[in-house]
Amino acid sequence: MGKHKDILKNMAGIFQVRHMLLRQALAECLGTLILVMFGCGAVAQMVLSKGTHGTFLSVNLAFGFAVTLGILVSGQISGGHLNPAVTFTLCLLKREPWRKFLLFFFFQTLGAFLGAAVVFGMYSDAFWDFGHGELIVVGENATAGIFATYPSKHLTLVNGFFDQLIGTAALIVCILAIVDPHNNPVPRGLEAFTVGFVVLVIGLSMGFNSGYAINPARDLGPRLFTALAGWGGDVFCANTYWFFVPTCVPFLGAMVGVLMYQLMIGHHLEGEVQEKQKEEEERLKLSTVSASEDA
Amino acid sequence: MGKHKDILKNMAGIFQVRHMLLRQALAECLGTLILVMFGCGAVAQMVLSKGTHGTFLSVNLAFGFAVTLGILVSGQISGGHLNPAVTFTLCLLKREPWRKFLLFFFFQTLGAFLGAAVVFGMYSDAFWDFGHGELIVVGENATAGIFATYPSKHLTLVNGFFDQLIGTAALIVCILAIVDPHNNPVPRGLEAFTVGFVVLVIGLSMGFNSGYAINPARDLGPRLFTALAGWGGDVFCANTYWFFVPTCVPFLGAMVGVLMYQLMIGHHLEGEVQEKQKEEEERLKLSTVSASEDA
Amino acid sequence: MGKHKDILKNMAGIFQVRHMLLRQALAECLGTLILVMFGCGAVAQMVLSKGTHGTFLSVNLAFGFAVTLGILVSGQISGGHLNPAVTFTLCLLKREPWRKFLLFFFFQTLGAFLGAAVVFGMYSDAFWDFGHGELIVVGENATAGIFATYPSKHLTLVNGFFDQLIGTAALIVCILAIVDPHNNPVPRGLEAFTVGFVVLVIGLSMGFNSGYAINPARDLGPRLFTALAGWGGDVFCANTYWFFVPTCVPFLGAMVGVLMYQLMIGHHLEGEVQEKQKEEEERLKLSTVSASEDA
Amino acid sequence: MGKHKDILKNMAGIFQVRHMLLRQALAECLGTLILVMFGCGAVAQMVLSKGTHGTFLSVNLAFGFAVTLGILVSGQISGGHLNPAVTFTLCLLKREPWRKFLLFFFFQTLGAFLGAAVVFGMYSDAFWDFGHGELIVVGENATAGIFATYPSKHLTLVNGFFDQLIGTAALIVCILAIVDPHNNPVPRGLEAFTVGFVVLVIGLSMGFNSGYAINPARDLGPRLFTALAGWGGDVFCANTYWFFVPTCVPFLGAMVGVLMYQLMIGHHLEGEVQEKQKEEEERLKLSTVSASEDA
Repeated sequence: MGKHKDILKNMAGIFQVRHMLLRQALAECLGTLILVMFGCGAVAQMVLSKGTHGTFLSVNLAFGFAVTLGILVSGQISGGHLNPAVTFTLCLLKREPWRKFLLFFFFQTLGAFLGAAVVFGMYSDAFWDFGHGELIVVGENATAGIFATYPSKHLTLVNGFFDQLIGTAALIVCILAIVDPHNNPVPRGLEAFTVGFVVLVIGLSMGFNSGYAINPARDLGPRLFTALAGWGGDVFCANTYWFFVPTCVPFLGAMVGVLMYQLMIGHHLEGEVQEKQKEEEERLKLSTVSASEDA
Repeated sequence: MGKHKDILKNMAGIFQVRHMLLRQALAECLGTLILVMFGCGAVAQMVLSKGTHGTFLSVNLAFGFAVTLGILVSGQISGGHLNPAVTFTLCLLKREPWRKFLLFFFFQTLGAFLGAAVVFGMYSDAFWDFGHGELIVVGENATAGIFATYPSKHLTLVNGFFDQLIGTAALIVCILAIVDPHNNPVPRGLEAFTVGFVVLVIGLSMGFNSGYAINPARDLGPRLFTALAGWGGDVFCANTYWFFVPTCVPFLGAMVGVLMYQLMIGHHLEGEVQEKQKEEEERLKLSTVSASEDA
Repeated sequence: MGKHKDILKNMAGIFQVRHMLLRQALAECLGTLILVMFGCGAVAQMVLSKGTHGTFLSVNLAFGFAVTLGILVSGQISGGHLNPAVTFTLCLLKREPWRKFLLFFFFQTLGAFLGAAVVFGMYSDAFWDFGHGELIVVGENATAGIFATYPSKHLTLVNGFFDQLIGTAALIVCILAIVDPHNNPVPRGLEAFTVGFVVLVIGLSMGFNSGYAINPARDLGPRLFTALAGWGGDVFCANTYWFFVPTCVPFLGAMVGVLMYQLMIGHHLEGEVQEKQKEEEERLKLSTVSASEDA
Repeated sequence: MGKHKDILKNMAGIFQVRHMLLRQALAECLGTLILVMFGCGAVAQMVLSKGTHGTFLSVNLAFGFAVTLGILVSGQISGGHLNPAVTFTLCLLKREPWRKFLLFFFFQTLGAFLGAAVVFGMYSDAFWDFGHGELIVVGENATAGIFATYPSKHLTLVNGFFDQLIGTAALIVCILAIVDPHNNPVPRGLEAFTVGFVVLVIGLSMGFNSGYAINPARDLGPRLFTALAGWGGDVFCANTYWFFVPTCVPFLGAMVGVLMYQLMIGHHLEGEVQEKQKEEEERLKLSTVSASEDA
């Protein structure tokens, strides 16, 4: 028995990654894996079962709570961004150093890639059964939409651009409010649940155009996987290179979200805090002056 | 790097709104924008997708959690009313000064207007596709109902009056219980979630008549937007000036709700607290009397 | 302004009910009103809209969260039973005095009656439209099932008896675990939400036989209302006096639930606590003995 | 009245189980009973009502919250595993002694057996009505799938193996994160709710292949019940002895989940804690050394 315990201890010693940044990157990777495994898994369940085992509502619920679980698993270590646009926002606000950005982006995309692989492995028989042995990108019996997002028929590129811009801006405004140290409206420990609700609500209200990617890693990773797994290069070329939109626009959306939140809420709170600090400093000065005068 | 931080600091200095009331009004504006953007966005998703991407349940969930998020974003600054009927209630109970009422009403309506604009911008292609280029108020392919509320076929004006009266009264009774300092049943920080549940439940049970506006700003702002954006004056004239009902009756409903809560719960708790205070004061008097007698 | 405040204070003085028991009864009345208003309101919305504005899932959600809101509104004052079977359980366990039982039963039923009246008032046009002016108890276009519960076609009286027995026992086991001072698994302030989840789950899994009344007041109050409002005596006579089942069996179910919980969880925890108290007492005795020996 | 209280006290004395392990086993039994009663009850409601009173989403919600309630009822006493794979995981990590494993496995299976019996008793008329007096395992009007899991048509044994492996691994990774003393992302008292969300999300995304057993007791207990209650030996033999998969593979999945979590998150946190302890010890040594040198 003691031996068993020693083995566990030794394993912790052997496999422990001492480099903090790498450890955080691993956590982001696992978190995004969980996000995509559950989220895209729910889309797979809805599409492959032809609606008997899932609806758009259950996909929304799955993505929302998948975000929650991904943050819960990784949050203590890396902050649980799971989204390059979120990392970008925090770098922009100087809450994270810029050198994290590319590293996190890579590992988040890797996690999303692996998550897509898990979904494909899990439902491989169902994919075979559904597409009669074919993996199709566009048209009837298309299954590429299970992994990455593709625009609806009615959507033009310009509208798609605004779709991703607005969606990400809405996400970032809500996240900034939730984690703002001066606003801080949610009890400690419930941030993950609240961010999950944000993603749920975005899915309920902004999912019809192209399926609310609002996350470059969540879209790019699974898209890469489909390109390699048999759907072919069409996943990138289809719809006049649509894939640029969910991969690039969320960063613009993040900037808009930061601007909106800071102009309407954040700056006023920060300014207030700075003023209070100044007043306190002056009071301190005054009191030391009067104290020295007393003496 | 230091420069970047300085820029952020300076921006906070430049854009900081020092006038507290204006700051609160801005917060109400953003909160109501979020409420309408997500709420009406979910209706748009349901209607425009013809039910494939949304059901009435998902609209209810979206409105409920949109209220939660709106309160979370604005609550620390303005209290997160998001609804002139709520502001009215708090003024009536002397918890907010009356001068806030019209200001908040205006900014809440403005926020709702902007939220409707975001929804229209986001789904503009889908609107075009759905109405074949037309924006219709009444009849098949009508899309005005996405933004403001219109009565069902079976509804008379009298019943509509009671519909809004009962809905708002129910909302206000629940909110008063949640924020009552003497009742206070919800842990600090969960008020926003609980109010969201209230709106969810109201949508699940009181949404069939006319779509549970129970909020003059949420109805008037988007209605104004539709009037300007191409649906025309019909949005006001249709159904024998129905728009008066969701714009005016919620204030009456708020009064009924206050009366109900105060008569059945509130007064007894307040009276109790007052009695305790009196007893304490008398005990204090007695003890000072006995103390002076002792001396 | 000061005048306004005085008026509010005076009203609190005039309308304050000083009799604690009556005050609790009023709170139970309002809580059950809320439960039935939202719960039966959701059934009305589902039935009257013929499924476009509600499904059985939304009814389940509405009943669950309606219980939560009813408890939140009344919990601080009366405990938020909202159900004679719960009051009965707490009397059985000596946590409430028996004299409360009949009083609460009456006021809970009164609240349910009033809640049904609110639903009828709110949807009166829709009732008229749905039944073409008739209020029918059994058969197509029947609307009595919106208020009270009636058995499904497949259900015999014996099975209905066990349905209510099992449903109430499950409810009571879960509630006892949630409020057990020695078990106490839920953070303070979340009991109302957890009980709401219990009712939601019961609705999801035990609602097909007869609609999970598991609450004599919730069934009897609205049934009385329908009898008076125009559905006639059939609401009592239909299905060979079915109404006895949801009115009486829940009390038996409560007893079974108490027995189950106490035998499998409760007694062991209580016994433990008693043993600890005894040990402590003996240690105290011993220490005083040794202290006196030392002296 | 005093007599009544004495009776309650005496009963606690008589029925108190003093053997801690047996008491924990009883708690696991009741918890799993609740899990299966609500979970399989929801499947029964969906199947027997032919979809009018339930959908796959409501089954997912029921299983999720049933897990929450089962953990709430039993958690303080036994930890609320409700799943032999979870017990196995905790034994593997030396957080529970191995002797608990078989005992808990037996009582969890017993609880699941009894839960299935409750569902059958509750819906016996509906079963009779649905199957026209027959209890069928495979084909149309099959009802065995209400209790135990059976593979979908498209599923091969190999894919089924990976289905259960991935599902259980995902469950275990999330549970380990939730209860990790060094990670600990959830406020105390909300673990049960979070685990419920995990099961909900797994149901939303991994339920199409065979119905996400991921719990040997939840599958074996009800399967045994159906074998005895009239469905016959087919429940074991059907689909080339499928029942081995949900009974055995979850243990493998638990091992994979432990490995995943430990390699990507757990070891690093543990290693960190160990290093801190070592540093502290060395500092202590140094300070005692310097203290003795000072002396």
